[in-house]
Parts: sequence; structure tokens; C-alpha cells
Amino acid sequence: MPLSPEQKAEIESQRAGGERTLRAVSPGMEARLYTAHEVLDHGFVRVIDYMGDDAAICQAARVSYGRGTRSVQNDEGLIRYLMRHWHSTPFEMCEVKFHVKLPVFVARQWIRHRMANVNEYSARYSILDREFYIPAPEQLAAQSTQNNQGRGDVLQGEEAQRVLDLLRDDAMRSYDHYEAMLSQDGQQGLARELARMNLPANIYTQWYWKTDLHNLLHFLRLRADAHAQYEIRVYAEVMCEIVADWVPAAFAAFRDYRMDAVSLSAQGAAALKRRLAGEVVTQENSGMGAREWREFQEVWG
Amino acid sequence: MPLSPEQKAEIESQRAGGERTLRAVSPGMEARLYTAHEVLDHGFVRVIDYMGDDAAICQAARVSYGRGTRSVQNDEGLIRYLMRHWHSTPFEMCEVKFHVKLPVFVARQWIRHRMANVNEYSARYSILDREFYIPAPEQLAAQSTQNNQGRGDVLQGEEAQRVLDLLRDDAMRSYDHYEAMLSQDGQQGLARELARMNLPANIYTQWYWKTDLHNLLHFLRLRADAHAQYEIRVYAEVMCEIVADWVPAAFAAFRDYRMDAVSLSAQGAAALKRRLAGEVVTQENSGMGAREWREFQEVWG
Amino acid sequence: MPLSPEQKAEIESQRAGGERTLRAVSPGMEARLYTAHEVLDHGFVRVIDYMGDDAAICQAARVSYGRGTRSVQNDEGLIRYLMRHWHSTPFEMCEVKFHVKLPVFVARQWIRHRMANVNEYSARYSILDREFYIPAPEQLAAQSTQNNQGRGDVLQGEEAQRVLDLLRDDAMRSYDHYEAMLSQDGQQGLARELARMNLPANIYTQWYWKTDLHNLLHFLRLRADAHAQYEIRVYAEVMCEIVADWVPAAFAAFRDYRMDAVSLSAQGAAALKRRLAGEVVTQENSGMGAREWREFQEVWG
Amino acid sequence: MPLSPEQKAEIESQRAGGERTLRAVSPGMEARLYTAHEVLDHGFVRVIDYMGDDAAICQAARVSYGRGTRSVQNDEGLIRYLMRHWHSTPFEMCEVKFHVKLPVFVARQWIRHRMANVNEYSARYSILDREFYIPAPEQLAAQSTQNNQGRGDVLQGEEAQRVLDLLRDDAMRSYDHYEAMLSQDGQQGLARELARMNLPANIYTQWYWKTDLHNLLHFLRLRADAHAQYEIRVYAEVMCEIVADWVPAAFAAFRDYRMDAVSLSAQGAAALKRRLAGEVVTQENSGMGAREWREFQEVWG
Repeated sequence: MPLSPEQKAEIESQRAGGERTLRAVSPGMEARLYTAHEVLDHGFVRVIDYMGDDAAICQAARVSYGRGTRSVQNDEGLIRYLMRHWHSTPFEMCEVKFHVKLPVFVARQWIRHRMANVNEYSARYSILDREFYIPAPEQLAAQSTQNNQGRGDVLQGEEAQRVLDLLRDDAMRSYDHYEAMLSQDGQQGLARELARMNLPANIYTQWYWKTDLHNLLHFLRLRADAHAQYEIRVYAEVMCEIVADWVPAAFAAFRDYRMDAVSLSAQGAAALKRRLAGEVVTQENSGMGAREWREFQEVWG
Repeated sequence: MPLSPEQKAEIESQRAGGERTLRAVSPGMEARLYTAHEVLDHGFVRVIDYMGDDAAICQAARVSYGRGTRSVQNDEGLIRYLMRHWHSTPFEMCEVKFHVKLPVFVARQWIRHRMANVNEYSARYSILDREFYIPAPEQLAAQSTQNNQGRGDVLQGEEAQRVLDLLRDDAMRSYDHYEAMLSQDGQQGLARELARMNLPANIYTQWYWKTDLHNLLHFLRLRADAHAQYEIRVYAEVMCEIVADWVPAAFAAFRDYRMDAVSLSAQGAAALKRRLAGEVVTQENSGMGAREWREFQEVWG
Repeated sequence: MPLSPEQKAEIESQRAGGERTLRAVSPGMEARLYTAHEVLDHGFVRVIDYMGDDAAICQAARVSYGRGTRSVQNDEGLIRYLMRHWHSTPFEMCEVKFHVKLPVFVARQWIRHRMANVNEYSARYSILDREFYIPAPEQLAAQSTQNNQGRGDVLQGEEAQRVLDLLRDDAMRSYDHYEAMLSQDGQQGLARELARMNLPANIYTQWYWKTDLHNLLHFLRLRADAHAQYEIRVYAEVMCEIVADWVPAAFAAFRDYRMDAVSLSAQGAAALKRRLAGEVVTQENSGMGAREWREFQEVWG
Repeated sequence: MPLSPEQKAEIESQRAGGERTLRAVSPGMEARLYTAHEVLDHGFVRVIDYMGDDAAICQAARVSYGRGTRSVQNDEGLIRYLMRHWHSTPFEMCEVKFHVKLPVFVARQWIRHRMANVNEYSARYSILDREFYIPAPEQLAAQSTQNNQGRGDVLQGEEAQRVLDLLRDDAMRSYDHYEAMLSQDGQQGLARELARMNLPANIYTQWYWKTDLHNLLHFLRLRADAHAQYEIRVYAEVMCEIVADWVPAAFAAFRDYRMDAVSLSAQGAAALKRRLAGEVVTQENSGMGAREWREFQEVWG
């Protein structure tokens, strides 16, 4: 339950408003504004503001005076061309601001994307809420035996229960002690900036996060990817749906030329050309290392 | 005359529109949107889009769920506090996109501000218009004798006329030859990306330029300053007026704590304290160098 | 004890080396290279590499072909001028790379400085060590009653002991359970990327952090400041000493024009001018708010 | 002839020096330091300073205490893995500073790469030299008829001569008038910041340009590409040779996974899979537009 009744009421009152603007308006994004899209057990993503739409990308690429009389089809073709040829500046002309509630260990990965503006809830200044991420049973995975930074089988039975108990108990105890240290009941109360150090990385924090469309797509490319940790991927997936509603043409081009695209190394491209010419290519004669060959085969058989 | 009738018509049609939005709306900015504010002889600045307002700064600083019930007065106090104590991230939560027409030598100074998104009209791809900046007579200044990068007295009479004639004639001849090289009349026509190299730095270019409020204020602090070159300062001054309408509280704080503020070095602060205590401070006993002492005296007598 | 014997041996072997280079060499920095400067109970800062020196700042500002025949005195004067007039690009021409070991809650503040390059030890990929920051008794401060993000009196006696016990016990228990969840002893062992969420914010992490001198000085200005949290300030203070050895002229200018400088708002400057003219200025006739007036009085009496 | 005898002497004296350092040293880069690599008719690129080598990339990726005992082969494998999987931060750990002399229209493209530090020779402060880029006859290309931003056939005979004469005459005349306006011979002399506006875009400027290896490779990927304008590509090509000497393993990985790599869209990858399965794929059944199909055929036949 990510939102209190008061918070829900605030969001409803924001959605009930509406004023006239001369700016570009994206109907798909207006339908999303302010609403909290739930993620994990207590987290959410909501759009607070946005600037621009598909037409704004084209307008900037053309440095034009108005929104022009070009057809939507022309705009789509231009957007696909820009994406295919790695033009980045027109996509930077759209901007979006999110309000995100997320576990601290997810925030620590997320913040590595530097081309963004961030205001985080301050545990130096304020007291954090008692809200922790506890994985759903189907997410309680063992360490992968092949991949140092991956997950293997889902834990079962007693083993799963033991992990859940440890996570839940330690979170509650840490928070009890956080409160006990802060308390001014018969004592002075430890400084907030010190007490917070007792809180584990699955506590929830929240922030305003603002970035441009080019950098957002780069973030989504890495974080909506199958190799990203599940707990950040679910945020990225919700944001993909939002972007698809906001700038449908840009998102479609992104999907085709980035998310679902395949990058071939010089060796990989040569191997495919030889295969197309009927040759049998093996790791030995491909010029690829063992690991790269395995990755190549996963895609091309 | 910066705009053609067709361009004016496009702008009028943009201003005639209007749709409902749930986003924060700044009335002062809506009144500015799309309109070309004329600068120099053929240049302009116009706002194409914006995101956020004074309340959005506070909302981000508080990481709050709604726009809250805080009074405007509270918001102003918070904004002044944030500005005074060099908080930058809340101001990054507002964004603005300009369409600017400007001489190339001004563009070359402007682009040094890297924290911005830019799409410039491409002289590789398209043909530039025959529009050059020719200074107004009262801007035709001699080299300063004190300051290597400053202006002295305004040139008069024949000397002024000679300079204006040179600038105008060279501009026209360069453009004639640019056209002659490009022409496909009885010849192949030189590539645009080569022909453009003949054009002088006072030709006009244009771009879409987008940045956040924090970085915009930094730009304005340096470029609306008396030490900035006149030809970029006039752009910055128009943008100051626009920002004052967009986020009045943030701009007032910026004026008081940045533009009209005074920075004292350790030595300068010590000198003032001694003066307040009745002491006479000279360069010799101030710890300042000759040049710094002169700069100190210009402010404090 | 921040370093193991093996790590100390590695550092000694690095310091024992030495090769010829044609690059600019800073003797003060060579003396610091690789050595771990201890900070807090288990942390450290050590310089891994650097580029440039005071002369390099001047050389870039002059865009010169060689290191020139200018005297050191000329260089110092130029550096002071550049710093006084907020020139930033010449200072960006020096670069430094640190290896830092620090508690996670300090890392979370530090990473907010985005103009830097970072490689952090990955708790997704590897297992963290059992090392936690436990404040020294004299740092165990109560919440400030005046300042929401500040510290008040130091806790005493039983109250202090209780806090220390809680922090230490919770850290040890969290780590025990982290190990228990990871263990493959008779079970599959939870994925590292999940198990880490049980670890509190006072666990130590480490990273390589690289930035240019301009951005480093900005970091130091904010983090070596009296308002910064003690636990990050001690890192900044050590780095100040390192920078003073690396680029003595730039650091002296930084101290005079930034660290020990005083910024006066428009209202503050006007108030001082009136005082110098013999007038009595009060909050009421100063144009300052109550809080700003208090801050003004702290400096100027 | 890009360098005067005095400048050559300064460079020779820099190369004659040499001091001991404890830092990582790249022998390939030491051999390049300070030397001017000539580009175009008056331009050059020279390395002024660098930080890091191939081993430093691995050291940062491992967040290790020393340079380790890993074999060069291990390091190469790690570097290839990092490049293949789009890890960027380890490559950011190397830094390089160039001194570049280049025509203004090339500088205007170059500066669009924002993640770099720049100090440019100031035509506000100083007087520019009489040096202009005049294309070699084999570079005097006509506008492409297929590609708005490309070159077609090389101009021949009279047409070529006419272009060369126009470029050369206009450059000389503009510079004569620049000098005439600046002159204080019997007049006050126009301010430098104004007089420079008469100079065409083929005049040479120079700057110090510093960036990290990740951003440099991104620059080289775009600017050493066949679609880049010739006049910037020749700079990028020289820089590729320098980088290959500096960090051989990183450059080899960059060549295989970026420069010579092939990116396939979702539709392109599907088309290739169908071809490998023996199917005939046409534009109509490929899901690609006409232009994309043409680009696909250029690579895959």
C-alpha cells in the first residue's frame, strides 16, 4: 500500500484541476499525470510534469518556426531516421519529471545515471517511514552458478521461509532501534543524520527525478534489459509503458533500433556473412573468444 | 526585421491555440510563449516550451505529494533560503526551451555553457540566409586601453563610417561568393559543407536551446553581467525579463543573492571588518594585490 | 584498521616503483600517491593518479605551446585572477583519481556530485566485508534543537552507551544474517544482489572516484564546510590537504576566494555600506528577513 | 606549416625533459607527447598530458588496491567484455588532454561534444593569426545529389580554380580589413571583440581539449566515421592512431565492438534470421522502409 488516504486525496485533487496552456500537450501523458503506478510492495512511479511530444522532436530537428504542416507519417519517418543514425539532440528536447518511491539499494543503482536532476527525501532532515521491501516468494532467487551478478532457481520451502523471516525481522528491529535512538522520551535523542545509519538497504526512500528523453531512453535500455536486477527492471518496465503513451513514435523507434536491436561485432558480422554464403563457422575459425561465441550462439544459433 | 510574414503567421497560429493540461501553468510564461522578442538587428529570443513554476521548486525541495497548502509567502521564504545557501537541485526542476536567432560569434560564446540541449540550423545540410549583424553606430566601440577584452570610446565620424562600410561590404561579398560557389547554374555547385566556410562570424544562425533553471541562472549571471560582451548581454537581458515573468520568486532571489550580490575574499572581508572598527586600510596592509585592491575600491570606495 | 597486510604490501610495491615521464609532475602529489590517508574508523582516501599542476592551469588559460618562461609569481597572479573572476575552464584542466573507502550513507551524499567518474565495488557481484562505521564517543551528538539537519550536544553516559550498543549489535546481527542467507552450506544460498539489502547504511563500501580540479574544489567548498555532516567533512578535509600539496597556488586562491570568502546579498552589501557611512542598521530597515539577518549578524556583528 | 620555429623549439624542449613519476606510464603515449601531428594545411593535434593505461581500466573495474598480478591476457579479456557489454565507467578512468589547431567551422562541430573541458584561444582578448583552411584540390567536392549533407564528385578545371580563388581572395581581404579595423595607426582601432566578426569560418583557431577515454571513443566513433565531414574526420583519424598507441587493448576492443560493428534493428535481425533459414526477404515483407532497406542492403547485399 504505497499511498496514504491523504496522499491519494492530494493526487485526486491534482487530477481534478486543469488549465489552458499554449504549450504542446500529449494526451497520452495527460492521462498518466500524477497517478501512482504501483511497483514492488510499497513503491510507485508517477509523472509530475513533462515537456514536449513527438512533434517537438521533429520541430527541434528542423529548427522550425511552428509545428508545421507535415503529416504525422513524415514525422514518424524522421524520428525513425534520427534514432537509426544515433542522433541524440532532438530527443533531448523532451523532458519528464517523475516522483518515485523505491528501496535504497535500487536508488543506489539508479543514481549512477548522472544526466538527470534529483531531489531526494532527506534522512538528515526528516524521519523515514517504516516501510521495507520484502521480496515476493517468487522473487526469492538463489545465487546463479554461472553468472556472478545473476539469479538462479527460486528458493523453496523452509529455506525461503528462513530468508523472509530474517529480512522481515531485521528490518523491524532496525527500525525499532532507529526510533528508540531518535526518541526524546526521557533523553536527548540522537541526531537524525546519525540514527539513519542503522537502517538497512531495503528501506524505501523517494525522490523527484527529472531527465530528458534521450537520457531516459538510455536508462530504459540498460534497466529494462533482461540483465538488469529485477527490482530496478520493474520500475523501468512501468516507465516504458508511460513513454509509449507520451511519445508513441519515438518509443516505437526506440524499441526497434535499441531494445530489440542486435549489435554485431566485426567478428560477428563477418561470421554471419560467411554463414549466409553457405560456410560453416565455428568458434575456432570465427575469431571470437569462448564467452563471446556463446553469446553469439544464443542469438544466432 | 527578424521574421518573415509566413513566420509571423505561424507564430500567431501557435498563440491562437490552447488546450487543457493538468500540469503546472505559469501565467507570466504563457503570455510570452512563441512571441519573438527582438534582439540586435535581426535576432530574437522566443520561448517554445517550459516546465514548472515557483511552486514546483518548493514541491521538489519538499519531495511532496501535491502542490500543498503552503502559502505563497512560505514558498518565497523557502526559495530565498535555497538560493542563499547554494542549493541547486530544486532549481533544476524547472526547464525551458528557447528558439534563438543570433550571430555566429555570439553562438560561439553561448555554446560554452555545456549543461544545455541544442539543435542548431545546419549549414552542412541547408543554405543560410543573407542576414548579418552590423553594429548600431553607438555600439561601434574602440578597443579598451585598460582591459584587453573590453571596449573603450565609441568611434566617431569617418572612422566609424569606414568600419561600417568594411563590415557591410565584406558580408555582402562573402555571401555573393557563397551563393556563386553553391550555384548549379552551368556548373556542379560546391558542397554546402564546404561553401559555408566563406561566411564571416557575423552571419546569423539559429537554434533551439533548452536548459534547466539552475543552469539558466548561471548563464544569466555571467552573460547579463557588465563584463560580458554587449552582443550576448542583450540576449541575456531579454531572457532575464522572461524569467522574471515565469518564476517571479526565484528570479527575485537570484537578483538579490547572485546578480546584485557582492563576493568578498578572505582579505576583503577582513579589510571591511577593520574599517567597521574604525581602522584605515590601505592596499599595503590589506594583503591584496594591486589589481584586487582596485576592484575592491570600485565597490567599497 | 582500514588495510590488510596484503593491501599494505601492494601499496608499498606501488610506491617503490617509478618510471620516467615527459608529463608535468607535481612533487607534492608524488609524495602522496597510493598512500592510504585514514579517515573515520575503517575508511581511507588515497590518490591513485593525477594530471597537471599549477603551471598546467596557466598553460591552458594561455593556450600556449610550452610551459613558458613566465615566473611562478606571474602564474600565481594569473591563478588568483582566474579564481576571483569565476573562470572555471582552466581549473578543469587538472584531473585526479582517488580510491576511497567510506560508509554507504556517506557515499550516498557524495554521489550527488555528478561531474565525476565512479567505479564502485559491486555488492551484486561480490560479497562485502564485515566493516561498519561506529561513531567515536565524541561524535555521538543529539539532534540539534535549532537546525533540522544539524547536531547538538554530545550524548553522555548511559544514553551514549545504549546508542553505541544498538549500532554495534544491529550491524553484527545484520552481517551474521547476510552471511547466513548467502551460505551454501546445506542450502542453495540467496543471490548476492538480494542478500545485500539486509545491510545497514553504516557498512563500508569503496570506489574509484575521478574528477577535475574545478569540480573537486566545488565539492570541497560544500563538504569541507562547517554545515556539512561530520562524517563526509573529514574526508573533504583530508582531500584539502592533498590538493594543497598538489596545486599550492590554486588551493591558496580557492581558500581566499571561496572557502574563507563571504558572500553578501544586495541587501547585505547595502547594509554594510550604510554602516561604513556611520548609520545604524536594524533588521527592520535592512530589507532582510529574520533568518537572513541572523546569518548576517553572525558574520558582521 | 603549422608551427613557427619558436614553437618547434618549445616542443623540443618539452620532449627533452623527463622526470620520475610513480604514476602509470604508457610508453606508446610518451612517444607521442607534445609532438604536433599535422592535419589539413595548417592544423595539428598534439597530446599535452594523459592519465591511465589499459591496466588502469581493469584496476578501476575491479576496484583493486594495486595493479595486481593478473596477466595482460586477463586484462584484454576483461576489457573486451566491458566494451561488448556497454560498461562505460571503467573507460572513464583514463583521461587525455590535446592541443588542437583547427578551422572554426570544424571547431563548431567539435564543440557539440559536451563531455569535455575546453580552453579556446580568445579572439576577444587576442588577435588571430592570418591562417585559413583552403581545401586541397582533391577535396573540392560538389554537393551530393543523393545526400543533403554529403559530397559528390570532385570539381575539375575552371570550376575548381574559381572556387579556390574565391576562398583565398575572400580570406585575404577579410583579414586585411580585420587588421585595418584593429589598426591604431592614426585612429582609435576597433575593439577586438567586434573586429573578429569579419573573419570567415575557415580561419584557424586553437584550443586545449580534455576528455576521458569513454567520451573520446564516442567522439571518434561519430567523427572517424565515413559520414563525418572530411575536415573533422582527418583529426579523428589521427587521434585514433594516438589512442591505439596509448591503450592498445581498449582501442582494439573499440574497433571490433564499435567502429567495425554492425547494428541490426529488430526488423534487420529478423530478416537475417529468415535468410539464414533459406527464405527470400524483400523490402515488402521485411517491415523496413525504403531508406532503411537500402541501408540494410548496403551491408548485407
